[in-house]
Amino acid sequence: MPTLTPYEQLEQEFRRLHAFQGTLALLRWDAAVTMPRASADVRGEQLAALQTECHALLTSPRLTRLLERAEANRQGQQDWQLANLREMRRQRDHAIATPPSLVSRLARAVAKAEAMWREARDSNDFSVLAPHLDEVVKLTRNRAAMLGQHLGLDPYDALADEFTPGLRSSEITRMFATLSRRLPTLVGEAIDIQFGRPAVTIAGRFSAAKQRGLCIEVMKALGFPFDRGRFDEAERALTEGVPGDIRVTAQLDPRDPFAGLLGALHETGQALYDLGLPLQWRDQPVGQDRGMALEESQSLLLEMIVGRSRSFVTYLRPLLEKHYAVSGPEWSEENLYRRLNTVSRGPIRMDADELTYQAHIIVRYELEQRLLSGELPVRDLPGAWNELLDRRLGVCPASDNDGCLQDGHWALGQFGYFPSYGIGAVVAAQFWECIHEEVQGVEQQIAAGEFSGLLAWLRNNVHALGAKMEVPDLVKHATGKTLSASAYLRYLERKYLSEP
Amino acid sequence: MPTLTPYEQLEQEFRRLHAFQGTLALLRWDAAVTMPRASADVRGEQLAALQTECHALLTSPRLTRLLERAEANRQGQQDWQLANLREMRRQRDHAIATPPSLVSRLARAVAKAEAMWREARDSNDFSVLAPHLDEVVKLTRNRAAMLGQHLGLDPYDALADEFTPGLRSSEITRMFATLSRRLPTLVGEAIDIQFGRPAVTIAGRFSAAKQRGLCIEVMKALGFPFDRGRFDEAERALTEGVPGDIRVTAQLDPRDPFAGLLGALHETGQALYDLGLPLQWRDQPVGQDRGMALEESQSLLLEMIVGRSRSFVTYLRPLLEKHYAVSGPEWSEENLYRRLNTVSRGPIRMDADELTYQAHIIVRYELEQRLLSGELPVRDLPGAWNELLDRRLGVCPASDNDGCLQDGHWALGQFGYFPSYGIGAVVAAQFWECIHEEVQGVEQQIAAGEFSGLLAWLRNNVHALGAKMEVPDLVKHATGKTLSASAYLRYLERKYLSEP
Repeated sequence: MPTLTPYEQLEQEFRRLHAFQGTLALLRWDAAVTMPRASADVRGEQLAALQTECHALLTSPRLTRLLERAEANRQGQQDWQLANLREMRRQRDHAIATPPSLVSRLARAVAKAEAMWREARDSNDFSVLAPHLDEVVKLTRNRAAMLGQHLGLDPYDALADEFTPGLRSSEITRMFATLSRRLPTLVGEAIDIQFGRPAVTIAGRFSAAKQRGLCIEVMKALGFPFDRGRFDEAERALTEGVPGDIRVTAQLDPRDPFAGLLGALHETGQALYDLGLPLQWRDQPVGQDRGMALEESQSLLLEMIVGRSRSFVTYLRPLLEKHYAVSGPEWSEENLYRRLNTVSRGPIRMDADELTYQAHIIVRYELEQRLLSGELPVRDLPGAWNELLDRRLGVCPASDNDGCLQDGHWALGQFGYFPSYGIGAVVAAQFWECIHEEVQGVEQQIAAGEFSGLLAWLRNNVHALGAKMEVPDLVKHATGKTLSASAYLRYLERKYLSEP
Repeated sequence: MPTLTPYEQLEQEFRRLHAFQGTLALLRWDAAVTMPRASADVRGEQLAALQTECHALLTSPRLTRLLERAEANRQGQQDWQLANLREMRRQRDHAIATPPSLVSRLARAVAKAEAMWREARDSNDFSVLAPHLDEVVKLTRNRAAMLGQHLGLDPYDALADEFTPGLRSSEITRMFATLSRRLPTLVGEAIDIQFGRPAVTIAGRFSAAKQRGLCIEVMKALGFPFDRGRFDEAERALTEGVPGDIRVTAQLDPRDPFAGLLGALHETGQALYDLGLPLQWRDQPVGQDRGMALEESQSLLLEMIVGRSRSFVTYLRPLLEKHYAVSGPEWSEENLYRRLNTVSRGPIRMDADELTYQAHIIVRYELEQRLLSGELPVRDLPGAWNELLDRRLGVCPASDNDGCLQDGHWALGQFGYFPSYGIGAVVAAQFWECIHEEVQGVEQQIAAGEFSGLLAWLRNNVHALGAKMEVPDLVKHATGKTLSASAYLRYLERKYLSEP
């Protein structure tokens, strides 16, 4: 057998890591969809053992030596190999920056805080969670400091870099400031316009079997390959798996004819991204998706922009008749479009429409930075939350459950995650503006249930790049323009003001 | 943190191994039940990566050193810990005896032979498989020699020890010889008796949904815990998982009202065994099942002995009426009993009844020894097979598919496996005789759908022992008698001759 170069040996190690990560994805999917109710203890042990193995693989002295030797011998490497080497280094540096003792203290604190978050929600009382969240915040602060020092980044940027590689908080803050200047008035104007032409209420019961049939027909039209993937009902919508075996779930509520489909569209956006990643790199770091913000851009493009567009409603209406056996004026294209795009101020992020959603994100982004810096003590979070949401959206939550207890991210130690939701929406709109220019007749195609033009653009300009570039470079490469909020605002203004 | 003893460190390592093995079980279950059709390539990579990891763990120099140090310090250890140490040693010695180069050559040869076995079946022509099976036989011969040398056993015994720990071929040969002396005449007598009182044919279509309902009701009555396990339809019956998450499948054929149920009973027997293993040792080698023959004994006790008994038919008849909505003379207890216990000579092992089954096993046992020793060249297998089955059962297969191509075990490199089917039936009957003596009114309980007495005996005398003893010792401990074929022959004679 010929001797392998250090780089080739690294590829072997990361191939092993990829197999473990695909296995972890199956363990999680099964826990959400097929696992017996009481088997969570067994699953916890399996997940922990495999995660420990992945961490050990990434932080082994051998891997570090191989990386150093490969980095010292870059001549003759192709650009994809160089990018792969950079991503290997990124994964190893992120993994090694937190010492094992802190990893296990954080894991214990998070497990406790998550349980207490559920208890706090049961009693609608943040003080039940507060001391446990405080512990998570303190440990995360330590982790951010070490990670930042290791990566040469500000502590918060080091955390956010795990979700949106290459995007810094200075950029995020600038974009969110632009949005905060324009969105409040935009929301007000849109609500005024819609007030004069409200949507007719749609009621009824829509069985899970019917919703399932509808979701599958739409997913097939979008190009989801059912010989390489599944669609299942679960308690929450999620996408799990690897490009060769990708699984989507949605929550199917019989009282809501659209929520399940929109959830399925959201997840299908992510799944199609995964399926379009460069096949020959699929078991290497450079062949993975480019992080949460990019995944979210693909999800929101389908769920929010395409899935609630007039042309998609034209495609959808006969499918609703077919699968739900419904008719009547409330099922007209115009009413469906209004129903799917109603703007309304409310306290809950998960219920928010496209236009009010960013305010929820920006509030969380500001608060998590203040929590981490220590400027905002954890015990003062409920008041700060309510005050800030009122300022940004004009809504004051009536209780902790409607306020700072609604999301579990922080209890789970996920700081730096929220901005990727907001940036994902911004990126999606920038892609959409470009698709509009470059894919002739894309709206007519969508109205006809023909999504291949849309998908081809995404495949060529986004999916096929994998993790070759950092997020800002990828957006520039795909659209020819610097990442900014301007396409997003143009999209919202046209949709809600010019062509409401 | 206090320093761990070598034994305690070994427990940690085997806990990790247990988590990996449970994960492997889920990967296999998913492949059989829920995996998208085209994703087998991805699954293959995941299985290979995790199997390699398990092998590396078992054969690491560190584990060997820990074993040596723990074995040198046995004083003060409890009997379960000593047994655990012995089982750790067994697993390590079995794993390390085959050098990695031979492991990978065998893996490649087996992958090829399995594919060619399918092709050979498509063309009903053994010569398509022959050269590839020849390669597997040669490599397995090498492996058996190394394993035998390492374990101090004859080569064939070393292979069989993986499936039936502690049972040697001298014992197996002696029991099979006893059976071969008595069974041919017993089969003839039973057929003669049944000829005078044939079962009425049962026809109809029985949907998968109805069969599923029946299986689940029976499994619940047997004590299968659906909060810690699942039942699904699949292309073949299997049990996968770990004691905390156990999953059973059956093949549900709408033309056959019983095959699915009997398959489910078979698998439930194994699942209840797994669920009854000693909980506090569940992640250690000593807490595992005692190998294939014991698993098979639990399966056959439910499928063959209990599931086809007169008292079980009394319990089953109203359930058939309820789930299948059937009535008529063919559904009488007497006819159901005859239908489930019809003896008939045929060429196919999987279709064989309780009485003719052993002949199929004995033929395979004799042939695989001759193949491994080199006495029988692979190319001569079809003739030798047909000649021997004719001698043992009076049946001559009409083609290779009805003969030596019917099972895939050998192409898969599974030599030494077949006897455990036959020994499993023998052990099941020895347990059953003892249950009859010790559980008062067990037949009446079964007729009333009450299985707790039966299950309690199995739990206390078999399941709770885990892998603490080798197979012959376990049978002696459970029944008070040496493992032998006599209870089995008594059972068959009573059932088919005295009380037909």
